Amino acid sequence: MNINVAEVIAKKRDNEELTGSEIKEFIDEYTAGNIPDYQASALLMAIFLNGMSESETFALTDAMRYSGDNIDLSAIDGIKVDKHSTGGVGDKVTLIVAPTVAACGVPIAKMSGRGLGFTGGTIDKLEAIEGFQTTLSPEDFFEQVNDIGIAIIGQSGDIAPADKKLYALRDVTATVGNFSLISSSIMSKKLASGSDAIILDVKCGSGAFMENEDDAKHLAKLMCAIGKSAGKNTVAVVTDMSQPLGNAVGNALEVIEAIETLKGKGPKDITELSMHLSGIMIYLGGKAKTISEGRLLAENSIKSGSALIKFRQLIEKQGGNGNVVDDYSLFKSAKLEQKIYAKSSGRVHSIEASMIGEASQRTGAGRAVKDDDIDHTAGIIVNVKVGDCVKKGDVIATVYSNDEDKLNNAVKMTDESFVISDDVCEAHALIKETIGI
Amino acid sequence: MNINVAEVIAKKRDNEELTGSEIKEFIDEYTAGNIPDYQASALLMAIFLNGMSESETFALTDAMRYSGDNIDLSAIDGIKVDKHSTGGVGDKVTLIVAPTVAACGVPIAKMSGRGLGFTGGTIDKLEAIEGFQTTLSPEDFFEQVNDIGIAIIGQSGDIAPADKKLYALRDVTATVGNFSLISSSIMSKKLASGSDAIILDVKCGSGAFMENEDDAKHLAKLMCAIGKSAGKNTVAVVTDMSQPLGNAVGNALEVIEAIETLKGKGPKDITELSMHLSGIMIYLGGKAKTISEGRLLAENSIKSGSALIKFRQLIEKQGGNGNVVDDYSLFKSAKLEQKIYAKSSGRVHSIEASMIGEASQRTGAGRAVKDDDIDHTAGIIVNVKVGDCVKKGDVIATVYSNDEDKLNNAVKMTDESFVISDDVCEAHALIKETIGI
Repeated sequence: MNINVAEVIAKKRDNEELTGSEIKEFIDEYTAGNIPDYQASALLMAIFLNGMSESETFALTDAMRYSGDNIDLSAIDGIKVDKHSTGGVGDKVTLIVAPTVAACGVPIAKMSGRGLGFTGGTIDKLEAIEGFQTTLSPEDFFEQVNDIGIAIIGQSGDIAPADKKLYALRDVTATVGNFSLISSSIMSKKLASGSDAIILDVKCGSGAFMENEDDAKHLAKLMCAIGKSAGKNTVAVVTDMSQPLGNAVGNALEVIEAIETLKGKGPKDITELSMHLSGIMIYLGGKAKTISEGRLLAENSIKSGSALIKFRQLIEKQGGNGNVVDDYSLFKSAKLEQKIYAKSSGRVHSIEASMIGEASQRTGAGRAVKDDDIDHTAGIIVNVKVGDCVKKGDVIATVYSNDEDKLNNAVKMTDESFVISDDVCEAHALIKETIGI
Repeated sequence: MNINVAEVIAKKRDNEELTGSEIKEFIDEYTAGNIPDYQASALLMAIFLNGMSESETFALTDAMRYSGDNIDLSAIDGIKVDKHSTGGVGDKVTLIVAPTVAACGVPIAKMSGRGLGFTGGTIDKLEAIEGFQTTLSPEDFFEQVNDIGIAIIGQSGDIAPADKKLYALRDVTATVGNFSLISSSIMSKKLASGSDAIILDVKCGSGAFMENEDDAKHLAKLMCAIGKSAGKNTVAVVTDMSQPLGNAVGNALEVIEAIETLKGKGPKDITELSMHLSGIMIYLGGKAKTISEGRLLAENSIKSGSALIKFRQLIEKQGGNGNVVDDYSLFKSAKLEQKIYAKSSGRVHSIEASMIGEASQRTGAGRAVKDDDIDHTAGIIVNVKVGDCVKKGDVIATVYSNDEDKLNNAVKMTDESFVISDDVCEAHALIKETIGI
């Protein structure tokens, strides 16, 4: 080993800047199992409390990126743009922007993750479509993108194993919530995934990892800086996650809402965010000269139906029944449902996103731990948005599950998620800032 | 487990005060192996960087103290006073104060440690006396103290296992040098050792753990506060360790110097410190109304020879040949020796204690790691003190070893430890402050 591990820890403890090679050696040796967890966690806590400079953060990202496979997407023609969301409740945006952008000629070679806790995952959602295969060989993956312009599969390969190992350690040592550690964790995986450009949807609010808007902006800026330092065009959009995104939370329910949105009939917020992100991605993908031109192209692909056709193509190519886009009864549905009624008249003051996410998880739609099975039919439809007027007795949400205990459990929590009051309250601004353009 | 470990770590990370029961649970569960090292090291780093309040430090000390055996010295009559030195080079003070204080009627039931690195240990020194047994059963130990007023043995029993485990972890995670962690580590062991009062010799200077005088005073105050909070009369003396204490460094060499001091013929510094500490211990032990009266009694026990007689009694009772006090040729001696000469005339500007300590270790007198064997005959005699005038060619030190390579190695380092210059320089003040009286 070319470093004295205790000395590297002491340096960071004393708030000195670590060199790139010290960081790289530490990460490499830790990944190889030559540095024990107890030394890594001491360093993590020192980083948490003393912070890291930008160049240290770049070096950490780079070290984690190259700790495993780096995917080569050069077999796919065109500028590949990857999208990442920091995770939220009801976030089915990828299901909309991916076919929209692909319909506009930007190749979508997307590797997505599964959900955990109150955050859903794109792969889980797609698997709500019967027969949809989320595993493809690299060759088939490349070929499909070249053929129809889009493929969405589960993350495969050994992407940033250093991050996996460190994240598991951070999770149990109270060292998750640090800007440099979060941004390097996300960006190491994104950079290893081989795209040419990256768009980041950084959520803020109660249903997001970053509750505070300033923190979310800070994180977004740092991730853009990391992406650019690695030579990738990177744009970040900071968006609201204080209430669920759209109306549907839960896998099949969200796919249906995504299809509705692709038909131009989606909820306003999800439509707005999808078009905003699509516009940027089309611009980053070189198919528009400006973001507004990109957005116009995106909107046209919805109007013309080409985005929906692309989604149907994607489903069929990956083994699913394309008719689901026209016939929602082809989705399995939950046996039990229960409506939630407004207890008073007034305005919707808040819909606590984290509680809706937690309630959805309790219906069976999400995972508490990594290996939990999920119920694709379960979830919640929220009928109102913050700022809406409601009358006592209005149905404000419906909870779906296949298990009575789970349903009751979820209903209780869903019910508690709503605050209705007489106060004047404004609808939340959805898009807070776009960074990196 | 009654605590959420990650939440406790997060609390300290966020600079909040931990409760006594959170600290106790953490320490108990860690000692029991229910909390992994990687969580403990994250907490240690958070403590290192955010510090601990006095009451947290008291709670930590208490938790570590009660993690193992607490020795019951009630079978020994009188007020038992324990002495602890934070460790230095040439520190043979225990060998002098123990018989001196015992000769004045204060029972000495001393459990001592072994040396590591450049710091010597009382037990190693005593074992330089052929036949001296440093292991006694508790019954024999108590009986001997009641019989002759003194016994010195190696630490036995399961004293503060939490501290042992945590110290090993701190050592490799750059979390040693924190006031709360150091003081709780020392005091947990002292409190578990069962004495009624404690005197601490807190060293400062290059040959000590605390290089800085203010830091040493801060540590001394904190340890006194811990001792008092646990109901023990505790006094700390902050003393100089920028140059070796006395002239002898190395086990047999130091025992001989201790005997010389008990005869009233010891070096000035070691005599002064021994009398100062003895005076306090006699006072704490209730055999004098004031410290100055205690000191007078100590000095009288040297003059009358009763302290030397007590040391001889100790040696004989524990299986050694008491004649060593009169015939130093009964000590084995090193086969090789080499003199170090002054390279120029002038005043001794500095004698780097840490380098002399390291050089002594290289002669074979000390241990690099815990299980190393040591050579009781090896070591260094330093003939000068800072501030002394020397002439070029004067013998300023002699290095002793049984191995030519070790000798050469040690000679080189010893030689480099001295700085002789024309500058005016003052002798170092030996006793910086006495705290807790």
